[in-house]
Amino acid sequence: MRKITLFLFIFHILHLSAQEAIWWKTPTISPEIYDNNTVTFRLVAPQAKEVFVVGEFLPPSIVMKDGMPTQMTGTAAMRKGGDGVWSFTTLRPVEPGYYNYSFIVDGVTITDPSNIYTTRDVVKSTSILFVEGGWSDYFRDQDVPHGSLSYVWYHCDKSERDRRLTVYTPAGYESSGLRYPVLYLLHGMGGDEESWVTLGRAVQILDNLIAQGKVKPMIVVMPNGNIDLQAAPGHGPEGFFTPDLDSLHNYSGLFEESFPGIIRFIDKAYHTVPRKQSRAIAGLSMGGFHAMQISRAYPDYFDYVGLFSAAVGHEAGDIPIYQNPMEKLRTQFSKKPALYWIAIGKEDFLYDANAEYVQLLETNRFRYEYFETGGGHTWYNWRFYLTEFLRRLF
Amino acid sequence: MRKITLFLFIFHILHLSAQEAIWWKTPTISPEIYDNNTVTFRLVAPQAKEVFVVGEFLPPSIVMKDGMPTQMTGTAAMRKGGDGVWSFTTLRPVEPGYYNYSFIVDGVTITDPSNIYTTRDVVKSTSILFVEGGWSDYFRDQDVPHGSLSYVWYHCDKSERDRRLTVYTPAGYESSGLRYPVLYLLHGMGGDEESWVTLGRAVQILDNLIAQGKVKPMIVVMPNGNIDLQAAPGHGPEGFFTPDLDSLHNYSGLFEESFPGIIRFIDKAYHTVPRKQSRAIAGLSMGGFHAMQISRAYPDYFDYVGLFSAAVGHEAGDIPIYQNPMEKLRTQFSKKPALYWIAIGKEDFLYDANAEYVQLLETNRFRYEYFETGGGHTWYNWRFYLTEFLRRLF
Repeated sequence: MRKITLFLFIFHILHLSAQEAIWWKTPTISPEIYDNNTVTFRLVAPQAKEVFVVGEFLPPSIVMKDGMPTQMTGTAAMRKGGDGVWSFTTLRPVEPGYYNYSFIVDGVTITDPSNIYTTRDVVKSTSILFVEGGWSDYFRDQDVPHGSLSYVWYHCDKSERDRRLTVYTPAGYESSGLRYPVLYLLHGMGGDEESWVTLGRAVQILDNLIAQGKVKPMIVVMPNGNIDLQAAPGHGPEGFFTPDLDSLHNYSGLFEESFPGIIRFIDKAYHTVPRKQSRAIAGLSMGGFHAMQISRAYPDYFDYVGLFSAAVGHEAGDIPIYQNPMEKLRTQFSKKPALYWIAIGKEDFLYDANAEYVQLLETNRFRYEYFETGGGHTWYNWRFYLTEFLRRLF
Repeated sequence: MRKITLFLFIFHILHLSAQEAIWWKTPTISPEIYDNNTVTFRLVAPQAKEVFVVGEFLPPSIVMKDGMPTQMTGTAAMRKGGDGVWSFTTLRPVEPGYYNYSFIVDGVTITDPSNIYTTRDVVKSTSILFVEGGWSDYFRDQDVPHGSLSYVWYHCDKSERDRRLTVYTPAGYESSGLRYPVLYLLHGMGGDEESWVTLGRAVQILDNLIAQGKVKPMIVVMPNGNIDLQAAPGHGPEGFFTPDLDSLHNYSGLFEESFPGIIRFIDKAYHTVPRKQSRAIAGLSMGGFHAMQISRAYPDYFDYVGLFSAAVGHEAGDIPIYQNPMEKLRTQFSKKPALYWIAIGKEDFLYDANAEYVQLLETNRFRYEYFETGGGHTWYNWRFYLTEFLRRLF
């Protein structure tokens, strides 16, 4: 009897400690960034047979895929140590930057269990590698005055539903008594009202550039361009659903038509300067298409337009707000926008479409600015475009 | 020559598509919740030898650990199908609730790659399983008016630094012209200003209870109780660090001493009712200790005090603000707080400490309310305590 009691007692204790345990330690240190910016990745996996680390910061490698040599995003084989810890150290320093990476363990792609920082792009979660220094310091939370970030609901008359949007207000907003200009910043396909914050590092970029005096203090509004959704996945009545192309493909014109309602809400709820000269709109990819259409349909609303890797040539279909583009463009440019800014990377799959659009503007002698970079359809470029666009505003 | 050109061309195309690919599909469907609330978990891992799913919603199992039988949080072996997909279906319906789970693949604990929803507790990230219905509907984003959630920076005179806090304002706040009471809601050890939002589902609880008329519209302020940090990991100048016990163990009294500064900031920046009758403070675990100390040290600030699984018996040491507890308690209770609410689970490791504290209040005839539940030191309980505490406020 005594034995049983003791057994139950121990059993009970272990049960409690298992139930209430919090993990206070990560399995190992990973990633470890050294002073010279080389980086070691580690994974405890004694039973694994093959482990890779995958990230765009690694040199691209060539693998056979369907019988064809294919260049892959940088992939490096990790090596197993006697302790069951797999590791890989970059041969060269990693350039300062905000990167993502994954591990592939015997064919299963996972985030790094030792790294608490992850980010999600549509349905893919990856671990974050942030190498400080140089240009990437724009993406770092520095010790400067910080703006506030708010997730706010407004009523959308067009969809007859409440919808969520993100608002950045600059440091001092609460107490300054000032009114501020507003940038409306739109996400791409697969994104939502959180994308410019999580993937775009917009808050850090704004805090840092405003603190340096390179950018005017402004309000930045990031709506959700998926008019069929009320909010980012997991933040609205749609619940914990898995996003797919159907719900995130928004070329119906409804979002564009709903836009005046967003502006009315913002001008009412925030200390804005409610006039064209103090309003900008920009977007990336699908959001660039939206920004193009919205600024064209409502030519008295925005004095600054930014198209970042914009899907300018997207099929407009039989949708009222997309009709008569040339007539609308002529009206828009007759009102002389202060800036019509087109940015595109040479390797972007939308490069040709943008070149064609630029040609159209050129032919019609519409005043625009063109900003060409290397690279493709990537957040690396969109973060960079944002820093450039912001300097040109207001 | 021709061949090389073609090769380079194909090569280039593949390179681009690899670089610009976004994952539009998860590896498989997981978790899949059926109408009867049984759940199937799936993982594509053809090379794996052993896969488990681990979650508190599964029946506990007994494993040998260090030669002793140990009861583990529910763990179930998954079975490999011919297609290399491992799966497990719960034998019974899962009770409605907001749960976390992991997979263990050949000894490596990972989140579910098919589930985009994860949450972090200190250094442990897990996948979210949300089963709707019943009581768990409080934790769901329902189609009700939604409050706003803001991440705001204030200057902390005590630590001479800017610090981040989270503010919930109820639906209609921006336009109502009204002033609201304020609840200060504190996190536990290992937590930060985001914990009550991410793990505690405080936003959903407030939205739903306010919409049902069961709780008064209020502002809820969630500060960061780690006085040595400016913000949650990854959101402040501390950068992308890995939290550890040293940085998250806060019984120095400094946070408590800094609290009047937080209240001053909130009363200035928000439409509050700045008086004792309209102010509440509550916290869980370490945050319960903080709430106890703060309400005791500043007896004219709070009319409502909530201690959730509070670390009431924590060693106070030689710290000024913790001194003369009985004298302070007498002063506090002589001012007749409207509510002094103590909630604890029978299996909580702090149960005895709370029983002792209740005895102390009893002996001194201080008026309190005691709320005992089953369970231990878990978010399951803290979410429940919040729903109960909110109904008793203002």
